[in-house]
Amino acid sequence: LDTDGALVVGLLGCGVVGSGVADRLLHGFPVCSTPVRLAYVLVRDLSRPRSPTSVHSHLTTLVDQVLNDPKVDVIVECIGGLEPAARYVEAALRRGVPVISANKALIAERGERLEAVARQYRTTLKYEAAVGGAIPVLRMLRHLASADEILAVGGVINSTTNHVLSQMEDGLSMNEAVRAAQSVGYAEADPISDLDGIDAAQKLTILVALAFGTWLPWNSIARCGIRQVSVDDIAAARRLGTRVKLVASARREAGNIAATVGPTNVPLNHPFAAPRDAENAFLIATRHAGSIVIAGSGAGREATAAAIMGDLHDVLRSATLTSSKETIHA
Amino acid sequence: LDTDGALVVGLLGCGVVGSGVADRLLHGFPVCSTPVRLAYVLVRDLSRPRSPTSVHSHLTTLVDQVLNDPKVDVIVECIGGLEPAARYVEAALRRGVPVISANKALIAERGERLEAVARQYRTTLKYEAAVGGAIPVLRMLRHLASADEILAVGGVINSTTNHVLSQMEDGLSMNEAVRAAQSVGYAEADPISDLDGIDAAQKLTILVALAFGTWLPWNSIARCGIRQVSVDDIAAARRLGTRVKLVASARREAGNIAATVGPTNVPLNHPFAAPRDAENAFLIATRHAGSIVIAGSGAGREATAAAIMGDLHDVLRSATLTSSKETIHA
Repeated sequence: LDTDGALVVGLLGCGVVGSGVADRLLHGFPVCSTPVRLAYVLVRDLSRPRSPTSVHSHLTTLVDQVLNDPKVDVIVECIGGLEPAARYVEAALRRGVPVISANKALIAERGERLEAVARQYRTTLKYEAAVGGAIPVLRMLRHLASADEILAVGGVINSTTNHVLSQMEDGLSMNEAVRAAQSVGYAEADPISDLDGIDAAQKLTILVALAFGTWLPWNSIARCGIRQVSVDDIAAARRLGTRVKLVASARREAGNIAATVGPTNVPLNHPFAAPRDAENAFLIATRHAGSIVIAGSGAGREATAAAIMGDLHDVLRSATLTSSKETIHA
Repeated sequence: LDTDGALVVGLLGCGVVGSGVADRLLHGFPVCSTPVRLAYVLVRDLSRPRSPTSVHSHLTTLVDQVLNDPKVDVIVECIGGLEPAARYVEAALRRGVPVISANKALIAERGERLEAVARQYRTTLKYEAAVGGAIPVLRMLRHLASADEILAVGGVINSTTNHVLSQMEDGLSMNEAVRAAQSVGYAEADPISDLDGIDAAQKLTILVALAFGTWLPWNSIARCGIRQVSVDDIAAARRLGTRVKLVASARREAGNIAATVGPTNVPLNHPFAAPRDAENAFLIATRHAGSIVIAGSGAGREATAAAIMGDLHDVLRSATLTSSKETIHA
């Protein structure tokens, strides 16, 4: 904590998600009535216009300045992609600094290794924002897995394809629907990772890790995207009283984990039929607590920033607890 | 913790919920790979047959034996009702012993006082099982309230009335449906608290306390039960494409909290239309994270015991953390 008791944050990346986090940190984010201070925002281009404009005075292009400043209490990684994010996150953990990441590709590829590094250096890696946007599904899954036995986990977990399929139900072609998703910021300029189910498979890898304690390589998951879904398929589903959704699901079967991602005809009264546009829905089946459904906003600047704020609150609380315990024992 | 490192539990009450807890504790409940030992089960009648039968050797009728044994690490209260539960819970907290309660009437009436006592004696009071059965809604609400701002909270939160209304949709009269709910163990012999919305109002008081930090007296909540709902109302709702549900909801309005419980015509595509029989569904509207829906099994022996096991896991984890920190600092 800073000399004035504030939690000092180093933010890596200032794209859609990073700028949302900066906005929350710079414009009134009271947690536990402890102030949070944004020290650095790492970017590649200092001259690009940014929103909020108040972020400009925090910008730096020097990653070592952020990672080596002993005043920084927590690193928030919103760069996305595997490198250089992986290198930066590991460097922070090795300094004992807690890291919050919104990066599903990173966690799916390196989560097991990075969690081991975090344990070794007695710090924490948090990544609620990597799956389910604003929905605290990882938190819930972790809790249920610790106090119960998870039988299966799955859901409608990719917002871009769900937005595309929703638009196709409204009469658009696949190409028109992809452009519509791009125009509202849900689909990337190159939507291959979403349309081919890669994003969903990476998120499923993370869900499986928390549910079953096994880091399944995401590219080993049986996977089919939505490129082959036609307007006729959508119409046929409607006639059957169903809806086409990209469903990711995993269950333990005879000691193995069966995991798949693919377009699925979902009955209208099933919880997976409910999410529209960028909404996500998850189902966690447990031995004792039955099935729990959790749904909400799965993507977007505000939703993802909200999940990061939740992780930040946890880091702040444990920092406060630790320092008060150290005071007690000192 | 016990000399062998086990967490020692004193259980108060062995009715539907208490016997479910005893079953889980006596027949293999591994948490954090730490053993949990059931020391006492407080009952009024030693001679009554019990399930599981293995509980018999743990029975006692002497509350002081349970509350004054320094070996007991945590008290689980499954007596129900206000007294003597309130007296026992407060006595345990004053000894610094953490308490887990499944008792919504107790928490709604005395939650504010008991939480103050817990803080004063540096211990904890947990009551996830008091609302929503197996659904970890209080945990989620507490998390969202700490990192975001709650705008509204509500849901279908009384399993008995939901079971009755579901049965009426299937053609039963109110009286037949109440008897059906009693026969499967969801409705009490005297179902007045459920049918008149008292149970829902008490749960709403708890939701409001976590969402808005205010303990609203449950009997100040505008409340209408389901006694006046007729088979004709159910049929009329169906014609409108809606379903009659007992909805409890609260929102902050101009500094005040507007809270109501009453039968509501819910559109079929609304999350509150989905719960069947003993299922519950909750909606939490937040400023930044949008609306989060969480649904699952809201009542019954297994569901309620699962929620208590979740609380027990938290108590165990914090006990383990504290003792390992003390070891480190010793």
